Order: sequence, then C-alpha cells, then structure tokens
Amino acid sequence: MPELKDGQALARVKCLSIDPTMRVWMVMDTYLPAAPIGEVMRAIGFAEIVESRNPDYKKGDRVTGLTGLQDYVVIGESNKRTFQKVPKIPFVSDTVFLGVLGVNGLTAFFGMEIAAPKKGETLVVSAAAGATGSIVGQIGKIHGCRVVGIAGSDDKCAWITKDLGFDAAVNYKHPDWKQKLAAATPNGIDIDFENVGGEIMQEVLNRMNLHGRVVLCGLISGYIKEDPALVSLGNILVRRLRVQGFIIMDYASRFMEAATQLGQWKMFGKLKDRETIVEGLEKAPDAINMLFTGGNTGKLILKI
Amino acid sequence: MPELKDGQALARVKCLSIDPTMRVWMVMDTYLPAAPIGEVMRAIGFAEIVESRNPDYKKGDRVTGLTGLQDYVVIGESNKRTFQKVPKIPFVSDTVFLGVLGVNGLTAFFGMEIAAPKKGETLVVSAAAGATGSIVGQIGKIHGCRVVGIAGSDDKCAWITKDLGFDAAVNYKHPDWKQKLAAATPNGIDIDFENVGGEIMQEVLNRMNLHGRVVLCGLISGYIKEDPALVSLGNILVRRLRVQGFIIMDYASRFMEAATQLGQWKMFGKLKDRETIVEGLEKAPDAINMLFTGGNTGKLILKI
Repeated sequence: MPELKDGQALARVKCLSIDPTMRVWMVMDTYLPAAPIGEVMRAIGFAEIVESRNPDYKKGDRVTGLTGLQDYVVIGESNKRTFQKVPKIPFVSDTVFLGVLGVNGLTAFFGMEIAAPKKGETLVVSAAAGATGSIVGQIGKIHGCRVVGIAGSDDKCAWITKDLGFDAAVNYKHPDWKQKLAAATPNGIDIDFENVGGEIMQEVLNRMNLHGRVVLCGLISGYIKEDPALVSLGNILVRRLRVQGFIIMDYASRFMEAATQLGQWKMFGKLKDRETIVEGLEKAPDAINMLFTGGNTGKLILKI
Repeated sequence: MPELKDGQALARVKCLSIDPTMRVWMVMDTYLPAAPIGEVMRAIGFAEIVESRNPDYKKGDRVTGLTGLQDYVVIGESNKRTFQKVPKIPFVSDTVFLGVLGVNGLTAFFGMEIAAPKKGETLVVSAAAGATGSIVGQIGKIHGCRVVGIAGSDDKCAWITKDLGFDAAVNYKHPDWKQKLAAATPNGIDIDFENVGGEIMQEVLNRMNLHGRVVLCGLISGYIKEDPALVSLGNILVRRLRVQGFIIMDYASRFMEAATQLGQWKMFGKLKDRETIVEGLEKAPDAINMLFTGGNTGKLILKI
C-alpha cells in the first residue's frame, strides 16, 4: 500500500466497467489520448474508500470514476475530478453505477436526446443486447417508439423482446437477417441508434426514411479491423439524414439531471438490466475480448 | 411542332444545365425516380415561350424548369409546377438562371445555411471549381471564413484563389495534396462542404475540429463506381461531427428569398462565375461525361 500524502485517499476497487471503447484507448489517440504502454490501463470502476487524508472522503465512502484496471487507486489532485461519490441505494446493486446509472445509462439518455424521438416513430438500435443498446431501446419504448433491436444471438433477441419490451429483434447472424429487418420495420426507420457500423449500419441506412436521424454512438465492428466500419453515404445524402457523432464526456455538466431521470425509471421498473460478471482482475483481457465475440449480454462487469 | 391544347404553352429550349445528379437520375431511384428509358432525359433548362394557349404565358416569356434534354418543351398541367418565369436582367446572361441564380446558387445558399459558418472558421469545399463549389466558397468569404478549395487542376486552383478570393486551393491530383491540405488548414477544419466523397472526404474528415459540421451535398466520386464513396465514420464519432444530407428541392418554398440575396451579391460583385459552354443538343452525353473527367470549370451549360 502506498503512503498517502495530505489530500489523498486510498480506495479499494470493487468492480470495473468493461467497455468497447477500451479497445480504442489501447491503440490510438481519439477523444482521449491513447492509454500509455507501461501505465495502469484506463478503466471506469466502482471503489470504496479504505483510508483518507482528505476531508472530502472518509472511510467507507463509495465512489465511481477512472479507477484504472487495478486493485487499489489513490485519489488525489491529479485525478480527483474523474471521481464522484455515490449513495447506497436499497435493493440495488452497486454495479448500477457502472451501467444504468453510469456510462451506459448516460450514453443512452443523451443519445436519445439527440435522436429526439417522436411517438410512433421507428427506432432501430444495434448491439441491442449490450449495456447501452438495451437501455436505448427501453428509453425508446418510454417515448412511444416502435423499437427494433439488432443483436447477435437468438437468446439475446429473446431477452430484449420478452424481458425488455422491444417490439422486434433481428439476429444479424441469420442469413436472412436483412429480410427480417425489413419485415420488422414496415414503415421504414426514423432513428438509427448506431453502435456497430459497417454492414449492419449500411443495411439500416438502406431502410431510413426521409429526414431520419442517425445517432453515432459506436462503431464496434470497426474497432478490431484495419479498415474500420466503412459506409456508403449515398442514402445519407438522398434521404437528407442527419448524422450526429457524440461522446458522453461532452455532457458532464448534465450528468446529475440524467441520473435523476434514469434512477426514477429504474425505480419504477421501466429500465431493466442484466449483467455478465467476470471475476478476477487477471481476467480483464478475456473480458474485453468478450465484447468483440458477443460473449456478454447486458452490462459486462469485472469483479475484483 | 405539337398541336397545343387549351392551357398549354410551347417553349423553345435555349440552354440546359448539365449537372452531376443527372448521372444518378439515369441509373436509380433516389430523391426522384430514375429517368425512364425511352422518355426524354430529365434536365433543367432555360426556355422562351414561342406559342401559348395559356393566359399565364405569352410569346417571349422566359422560363426555367425541367425542360428535359430536347429542343422544345410543352408546358401544361402535368409539368407546369416545375417551371417559373424569370425576368430579363440588364448586363446579365440568361444562363445565370441555371447557375448563380439557379440550382447551384440555391444549393450553395441553403447548404451554407446548414453549415452555419462563424467568422474566422475554416471552410473546406470539394469540387471547388465546380458550379456549386465555386459559389459555396464565395459565400464562405462573405461570412468571414477562411476558405480552402479542393479541385482537380492547377488552373482551377488559380481561378478560385486569384479570381474568386479563396484563401487557398489544393489540387488533389498532386501526390502531396494531403500535406498541402494540412498546410492550408493550420487550425483544422470546422466546415466540410462535401461534393465528392470517398478518399477526398476521408482526408477532410481527418482534419475536422471537434463539433465540426459536414454538409453532404454530393458524392461525385461515387456516382460512376460500383462501391460508391465509402467513408470511415470513426472521426465523425470521436470528433462529434454533425453530418447533414440535403437536397435543394426541400427548400422550394424559400427559393425567392435565396435568389433575392444571391442576386444582390451578384450585383455587387461578390459572386463571380465562369461558364464552360458546349454547343449542340447532340453533345449532351459528352457534356455530362465532362463533369466526371474534370473537363469543366464553373457552370457547365449546353447551348442549343
């Protein structure tokens, strides 16, 4: 254990959020600098204060933030702005602060604000059984949309339709998935909440209605290839679509507002979630790879 | 000559606007149905009424609209909404109604409205020596932007910088054009007025600033290939860009407003233009092909 200096606190990392963006952090500068080789890998986690020389933190306080992939984190001057204290909520697992009330819920919330859904519109979300996609679809239902999810297994499709209330789901690994997407979107598509890119996005674009909106949240199909997620823009032009890229960091000043709304929805049973839990810090590389092989349903959590 | 029925007028087509979108009309349904084989090819033209059995038109009236690629057009119930009468403006060629005060000026005007340029921002326009691009850049200068054009010859680059007032021009046929684009945009790019797609667009996206705007007006690099204008969307995501496809038809109710502004700018010498003129209706196929080989500078007009 490090010797704490004045103003520092030591926190035990309890669980970590495993996200596709980590794959991007490893290889290049994007919205954040690439994670430097030889340093602790960047990760969002949930932690508990075990020792403190900072009056803002006392033993037992609970925080989320950029803990990194490690057992303990020292919170001090250089990183304290990435942390915030979170309350204990009865009957709710602490991991909710990494998922529905964390980066995924916030991403879904602000992404759907960009999408500006209207009642009766058709929303398609890709990676629909993932931590973000599953919340996006449920928010779409709250707004009165017809919600169609695209996912990579029949089990995932069953979960999002039967448990989460999506109107339809399409397994893109079926050879006739494009016909199924067409059948599930008889009035075309008004909103594409895009997490995948490449061929899946292309097919969604082919079914977009005039003046539709594409919320560009992720491009996971391109994160592990040389030529990432190429798309023809022809339909964006002729159907006058609006494509908006976004990164949740830009909304930091409104996180409390969103978390309050998400918390209410969660409390009233309008946002259901599921977790895939991997145990042991040494399993972090395997856990990250699961995101790219479809190994997780819902939020992927690494417990330490 | 056809026998006119009551309500019809006959117009002599004097000149035709030759536009990249004609290539698209020939092969597929997009924002308009594909031009049917065996019918007159769709084209925007300028014409003069030579005979009329419609009180709205008298001999000598001047019109622009969807004349088609033909010597004469009958204006009647089925097509009259595509035509409007235009005045004779002293010292100005009639072809201005096909260019600066026609589809190109209107496209540049409303596209730049979408771009919402702010003084001091950097605007890059591709196909910059084309009929639309050359006006886009000049409107950018009116708004106080740093304007950089991408074009396909040194002569075109010289025209847009020396005659039109662009701050810089890059000839994409030079092997080091990417370095030259970087040198011409030292503060990055805030607005991409995109007419080309593919590799040229990709390089512009690589230099876009956070929260930049892409006005998707054309994708000419993809109109004659199998796999049209593929682009990686990674930078749209991580730089939080907004991409807006648009088609000028959507702004029909505001054409008068735009033409009034464009006419004032033209009158005060703020919008200069150049025409490449091809003579003879039988040259229409050659003229259309010129757009794809870089054979025209400024507005391409077919005179009959």
